[in-house]
Amino acid sequence: MPSSSAPVRFLTGITTSGTPHLGNYVGSIRPSVRASLTPGVESFYFLADYHALIKIDQPDRIQRSTLEIAASWLAAGLDPQRVVFYRQSDVPEIPELTWFLTCVTGKGVLNRAHAYKASVDKNTAAGVDADSDVTAGLFMYPVLMGADILMFNAHQVPVGRDQIQHIEMARDMAHSFNHRYGAHFVPPQAAIEESVATLPGLDGRKMSKSYDNTIPLFASREQLKKLIAGIVTDSRAPGEPKDTEGSALFQIYQAFATEAETATLREAYASGIAWGDAKQILLERIDQEIAPMRARYQHLMEHPEEVEALLLAGAQKARAIATPFMAQLRQAVGLRSLTSGVVQAKVKVAKTSGVGFKQYREKDGKFYFKLADSKGTVLLQSLGLETPQMAGKSIGLLQKDGVAALSVLAEQLEPVGDVQALSAALDALKTAEV
Amino acid sequence: MPSSSAPVRFLTGITTSGTPHLGNYVGSIRPSVRASLTPGVESFYFLADYHALIKIDQPDRIQRSTLEIAASWLAAGLDPQRVVFYRQSDVPEIPELTWFLTCVTGKGVLNRAHAYKASVDKNTAAGVDADSDVTAGLFMYPVLMGADILMFNAHQVPVGRDQIQHIEMARDMAHSFNHRYGAHFVPPQAAIEESVATLPGLDGRKMSKSYDNTIPLFASREQLKKLIAGIVTDSRAPGEPKDTEGSALFQIYQAFATEAETATLREAYASGIAWGDAKQILLERIDQEIAPMRARYQHLMEHPEEVEALLLAGAQKARAIATPFMAQLRQAVGLRSLTSGVVQAKVKVAKTSGVGFKQYREKDGKFYFKLADSKGTVLLQSLGLETPQMAGKSIGLLQKDGVAALSVLAEQLEPVGDVQALSAALDALKTAEV
Repeated sequence: MPSSSAPVRFLTGITTSGTPHLGNYVGSIRPSVRASLTPGVESFYFLADYHALIKIDQPDRIQRSTLEIAASWLAAGLDPQRVVFYRQSDVPEIPELTWFLTCVTGKGVLNRAHAYKASVDKNTAAGVDADSDVTAGLFMYPVLMGADILMFNAHQVPVGRDQIQHIEMARDMAHSFNHRYGAHFVPPQAAIEESVATLPGLDGRKMSKSYDNTIPLFASREQLKKLIAGIVTDSRAPGEPKDTEGSALFQIYQAFATEAETATLREAYASGIAWGDAKQILLERIDQEIAPMRARYQHLMEHPEEVEALLLAGAQKARAIATPFMAQLRQAVGLRSLTSGVVQAKVKVAKTSGVGFKQYREKDGKFYFKLADSKGTVLLQSLGLETPQMAGKSIGLLQKDGVAALSVLAEQLEPVGDVQALSAALDALKTAEV
Repeated sequence: MPSSSAPVRFLTGITTSGTPHLGNYVGSIRPSVRASLTPGVESFYFLADYHALIKIDQPDRIQRSTLEIAASWLAAGLDPQRVVFYRQSDVPEIPELTWFLTCVTGKGVLNRAHAYKASVDKNTAAGVDADSDVTAGLFMYPVLMGADILMFNAHQVPVGRDQIQHIEMARDMAHSFNHRYGAHFVPPQAAIEESVATLPGLDGRKMSKSYDNTIPLFASREQLKKLIAGIVTDSRAPGEPKDTEGSALFQIYQAFATEAETATLREAYASGIAWGDAKQILLERIDQEIAPMRARYQHLMEHPEEVEALLLAGAQKARAIATPFMAQLRQAVGLRSLTSGVVQAKVKVAKTSGVGFKQYREKDGKFYFKLADSKGTVLLQSLGLETPQMAGKSIGLLQKDGVAALSVLAEQLEPVGDVQALSAALDALKTAEV
């Protein structure tokens, strides 16, 4: 659980199913690398290879894509010292958490997931069985995604509008689990990217693997030149003024150029630049940005052992969080050592000091807790909870994390009047325990 | 993979959701413990606590039930030296394999699972949404069960008729995975228990937790006496002849007594034994069998650390199989170290020796392999396979496991003429490799 002064945790996954292209770079890699440098932000980037299994049954392609994507992000400047950069399948706690979340997720919720519904609609339109060729993997992937996020209690998940539903599902899973087992998860927020830069492809449509119109991010300069030569243009001759509006070439240029450079090309369009010359300008501009990274990319592709080592180091950082958190969650759901006592010893200790939590039951049948200072002033008052376990868990969390736990427990508490006094009291309790 | 002389592997899971009662003992524990002593059988028994999460959100109850069930099986004579006795959640490879299998399972198959369909039917009858209150856990549990079985390539899974469908699903998962990634799984068989001994409960209906009519297996003698006193009888007075047919008391007695003892009680019924006396006879007969185990059970319940140690030792045995097998499966699906080469070095070595596998492609576009001896006599001939990877995997398996791999690969091969010659050739290849 993050403390209130702790950085905000962002989490982003990249499915290891292809080779990064310029569209991925402009829309995702470049802005992500920049965002990872923001102060006060803790970034998690992972290679989503468990997700890749849903769509791809070519093992070599998954392995190759994992290397290409990792090398691309590193070449583009992602600093593995500064962020947590890991391969999903190096964190075996994730599929285990997926099962826990499966058990607290209504099947009906998954029926309504967009990706699944799109497959059903397609099948229905084709007159075949609704679930024809739909794997359980496609159906369950919102739960795996929930585990990806909740495993690290990420606060913010940058997504496009089409992915908001998945974050809402992850929130529901967090609430549902917290309701049953006590407050363990921070319900995540979607950090909606309103203006994701999309790049047109060679044919003018959005650059996308599925349209086969991409320019690989790390094509060689020669390949790049050939591909750029193939970008569709209209047939206006040299000397004829050209439209920037609807020009794929112009839009791609714009994604790399400064405002001044863009203005210059706009003028050139107006004064009838030849398409061949415009393409040469585009080639030079892209290459100016990509060439310095290309050497690093080539080096990494030729030294997969270096990438592997970085990913394993990243996994170690990820598991430093995931392993103890999973132990806590296993304890919470009842998958415990048979010798682990059920009684919350900590709560008992706290009760013996002057300042202490009090747990009680009201006439409404619900369970409450409160914390008063030595003069009896109530510093914290819970709302009615369904079980004494929920109260116990929340107290445990407050004792462990102090006021940082308040946001997680917000739905269980009356508004706190004096946070400073509460913080001091919780500190005092902590000292008393030792 | 088991070798042909290796024992047949049986696997049984017990969901940790309750306290064992006499019905469980007679129907499952006692016959299982006896079966585990069969020569040539390798038995896996596991406490299915991941399964328990589907139905139970009371952590303490799961923990308590795990202890009670483990202590019951041990007290009833299960020898953890002789079998592999483990707690499911101590094998984290299982949820990971669950995800792999999720990705090769059609969603439509799960729609047709009996347990899920029963919930849907109930909801439909009640006029509510078909998936109302159905968790994804209930929907997905056939996949978790598939992972339980395939993780250890169990050959036989003892089940009642109502569970046959789940074994068929596990078979489908095995085939589906093998088809995509090469032969890794042995499709399991259902060992159908035609005549599972069921015991009537206190009220004469089948003894079951859901009817609240059970006699706990390790009730104290006093409790046992009280509960037996409560078994329903008719109101015939002492001296009146009594029917054994339909007498719960008689049926329970029969489940514990020898044939001679049963005959004696039948006579006593005919000659009008008083119900009180019959109940006393039942008490003594049950207690005669249970009392010696009760002391051991009590000891284990008071020493959970001993049970825990046995389960952890069992998990170690289970993971000695699961961990390397999972590494093999991860390699197969493409979740690999970036430094791991894709080329099958072993196959190459084999080709250099006189006797060797040959891989080739026919005009039908399919991939084949065969093995000939040094005189060119074909010892093994494959059918047409979809990919060269499948051929490579099968060759690898034959090189590793010898003729033991034949059963797994049966669907890929023409019938083998001379198994002995094949076995010798495979041995020769093995020696050549070293």
